[in-house]
Amino acid sequence: MSTEPLFDTLTVIGPGLIGASVLHSARRTGTLARRLIAVDINPAFRERVEQLGIADEVTADARDAASRSDCVMLSVPVGAIGPVAAEILPVMKPGAILTDTGSTKVSVIDAVTPALRPDISFIPAHPMAGTEYSGPDAGFATLFENRWSLLTPLPGTPETDIGKIISLWERCGARTRLMTPQHHDKVCAIVSHLPHLLAFTICGTADDLADETRSEVLDFAASGFRDFTRIAASDPTMWRDIFLSNREAVLEMLARFMEDAQAMARAIRWSDSDYIVNRIERSRAIRRSLIENRQV
Amino acid sequence: MSTEPLFDTLTVIGPGLIGASVLHSARRTGTLARRLIAVDINPAFRERVEQLGIADEVTADARDAASRSDCVMLSVPVGAIGPVAAEILPVMKPGAILTDTGSTKVSVIDAVTPALRPDISFIPAHPMAGTEYSGPDAGFATLFENRWSLLTPLPGTPETDIGKIISLWERCGARTRLMTPQHHDKVCAIVSHLPHLLAFTICGTADDLADETRSEVLDFAASGFRDFTRIAASDPTMWRDIFLSNREAVLEMLARFMEDAQAMARAIRWSDSDYIVNRIERSRAIRRSLIENRQV
Repeated sequence: MSTEPLFDTLTVIGPGLIGASVLHSARRTGTLARRLIAVDINPAFRERVEQLGIADEVTADARDAASRSDCVMLSVPVGAIGPVAAEILPVMKPGAILTDTGSTKVSVIDAVTPALRPDISFIPAHPMAGTEYSGPDAGFATLFENRWSLLTPLPGTPETDIGKIISLWERCGARTRLMTPQHHDKVCAIVSHLPHLLAFTICGTADDLADETRSEVLDFAASGFRDFTRIAASDPTMWRDIFLSNREAVLEMLARFMEDAQAMARAIRWSDSDYIVNRIERSRAIRRSLIENRQV
Repeated sequence: MSTEPLFDTLTVIGPGLIGASVLHSARRTGTLARRLIAVDINPAFRERVEQLGIADEVTADARDAASRSDCVMLSVPVGAIGPVAAEILPVMKPGAILTDTGSTKVSVIDAVTPALRPDISFIPAHPMAGTEYSGPDAGFATLFENRWSLLTPLPGTPETDIGKIISLWERCGARTRLMTPQHHDKVCAIVSHLPHLLAFTICGTADDLADETRSEVLDFAASGFRDFTRIAASDPTMWRDIFLSNREAVLEMLARFMEDAQAMARAIRWSDSDYIVNRIERSRAIRRSLIENRQV
């Protein structure tokens, strides 16, 4: 791996969990960029980033920072990526790279496309890493180690620019894979968005129970319920944006899931033992595959 | 805590994960019974229990063992508890205690009641502990430590007999609580049975996807899907029995959950941001309650 920095100046707009972790990684390896700029509209977040010392410059002026950068990374919530891109694209340097870290890709590309310029490479990316915490203080240098970062480059994007964003994530410790934005959104709908939706929902279902039963859900949560709540502690705004911006894929996966759950309900109602056992056997097989795949 | 053994002879029928763990605990504390008998119809399981040395006697003859015991614990799958109870109750010693470890209680009580004798106390219990493993080798002495064991005694059961089963579980390291069988089944439907049903279902939904996407579910499982699979590795026969024997409560909780999931789907389709954020906020509140309750 070359130790030459990938960029002269890298600007991260939105140094929250993901953005601050990229800055931590950049500081640690020293090979992402010679100069790091962090941009946030929230004064408290700017102050924290300055105190953490993970950027050479901290500013509220996205346009000014972008005009001086070889690479701009948008780490704002998915719903804000389009507006921020439209604001900074007109002033970006010719030949610079625009990238993002949004959890959905089709809607992000649709939102950014109208403002795109032919002399700027837009390379959408999605680092599949996170914790239930948010904000600059949630960031840490090893967040991306051995995690995936999925890239969904547009047709015609120069290979050398794609290579730079691949290197950026690899230097953060991540593994990378390229796929179409449509495929990305479908895969993420089943591996991430649907599990989160179900986790949020079962917590709500439990919260609606009569008081006595609800308090016992907390007492006896270790019996399975607890496993569903870790991911249910995630950031509400971020997840609202994800559900709304990956609407079609999320609703399709949820519809498939609901059909399967209804089939299970019917099997329980009519004592269809074979069906029930078959579904559980298939679940075990998937769990075994995960263990062989070293994902657990 | 008295060090006097609770019983002269304790028979555990079905020394699997739960039954073998009770025997391990009994061996370790030495205060459950002076003599431990393990009964299993599976010769391979009997051989393993003998090799593990966790019983003084291992036999296939449930009636003979029960006729010589002060306490008989049924740790067979829920669907087998009624038939085994009917087989042994006629030969049990007057004044002996019959107990079980089934995960559902209303159906177990319904199944055992026809064969009950007035001179035998039947004290249904449910230790809320387990792993995804099964069989005698899955058992270990600390399985019940700081876990709950729920007792659902029938009206008119002598307090001293209930006290003995409370002591049995406390000597295994568990905390105990008494409740009605109906309430037990409702609480377990939401904290345990529904989460398992959803976990089995989402694994099946993923397994039905096109080959390419399915393989990527395994690659990217860390993004949330993985959390749902730990409990999906559980024993198929045991879970089939649980779903079928707690049918009404499971179907009711699933129906409530499905209504809530449909409401979430509708909010996503119609971009009802407030509804989505409100549901996620409630989930976070439940997660916080669990942390305060030290369940995570």
